[in-house]
Amino acid sequence: MKISLGPQTLIYPNPVLIVGSYDNAGKANVMTAAWGGIVCSDPPCVSVSLRKATYTFGNIAERKAFTISIPSEHHVKEADHFGIKSGRNEDKFSMTRLTPVKSEIVDAPYVKEFPVVLECRLLHMHELGLHTQFVGQIMDVKIEEDVAGEGGRPDIRKIRPFVYDHSSMAYYGIGGVVGKAFKIGNEL
Amino acid sequence: MKISLGPQTLIYPNPVLIVGSYDNAGKANVMTAAWGGIVCSDPPCVSVSLRKATYTFGNIAERKAFTISIPSEHHVKEADHFGIKSGRNEDKFSMTRLTPVKSEIVDAPYVKEFPVVLECRLLHMHELGLHTQFVGQIMDVKIEEDVAGEGGRPDIRKIRPFVYDHSSMAYYGIGGVVGKAFKIGNEL
Repeated sequence: MKISLGPQTLIYPNPVLIVGSYDNAGKANVMTAAWGGIVCSDPPCVSVSLRKATYTFGNIAERKAFTISIPSEHHVKEADHFGIKSGRNEDKFSMTRLTPVKSEIVDAPYVKEFPVVLECRLLHMHELGLHTQFVGQIMDVKIEEDVAGEGGRPDIRKIRPFVYDHSSMAYYGIGGVVGKAFKIGNEL
Repeated sequence: MKISLGPQTLIYPNPVLIVGSYDNAGKANVMTAAWGGIVCSDPPCVSVSLRKATYTFGNIAERKAFTISIPSEHHVKEADHFGIKSGRNEDKFSMTRLTPVKSEIVDAPYVKEFPVVLECRLLHMHELGLHTQFVGQIMDVKIEEDVAGEGGRPDIRKIRPFVYDHSSMAYYGIGGVVGKAFKIGNEL
């Protein structure tokens, strides 16, 4: 039997997206966002939803560009830190001793030490309420060479991304394979 | 060093969202989508991106409502099946022996056997290209009582959701805790 919890933002899984942008003085900033994901295959687009109060909001609106860096478990502390502090009051790269890399494709920085990076130009801003959704066209995806697996494709077991559980406010790793997509469903 | 993969829809993790809708004859249908997630905290909103070619697209555009059911690992075959077949040619509930439940709040059905359900009314449709993004206001969240944990809150270890890896086209389970959010980042 089902229990009603009322309206709330519950879903599984939430990603941990590190959004990179430049402020108007050219300082690299990053923030952590869990409200986002892929939204279109062609053109390839990703979205991330931000509150107007964030420093990143103004940066992206101004520069029309952002990056998304996906952290591995090794950097869970840094990824969490990026979601606690504001770039208004702190240089998050100096604080975490991570390295901003200027994208050669879009006007935004990404995190050198993180294994997967999406470089995006801003296509749309959708006002939804407390959050505004920024839709970016993915101009390139870059991965660290040591997370490439079979055929040069990114290997999730080497990337070791993690998920955010909003209910327990904890991060969880990725477990084992539970099935092949577009295949296991044919067994029925 | 980073390798360029070109523009593509890579992100970690992708969710496995089972989108429920009624067709114009009132037949319950479900389809699997990986392009979606929470997009706003207030009002609480979720988005899911669909191609015009899907049966679900017309259903939601017509009924202005949909549900999202989150499957557990136990039902990975059924969840995958929902993404392989089309509701135009098959009654997916009969085929998988799962049960459609008519929402009392919105004009859409959800999957009785799945542990977490979001009931949504359509707020926006954003044309992005191959995909159109459907933004729904979450009117209620329901969970199966046996997945409630501490304080009645949903327990991810009982829900056992899984993620979709687009690179290897496989589903992965959720692993162990790697840190407490809004906390472990203060250790730096």
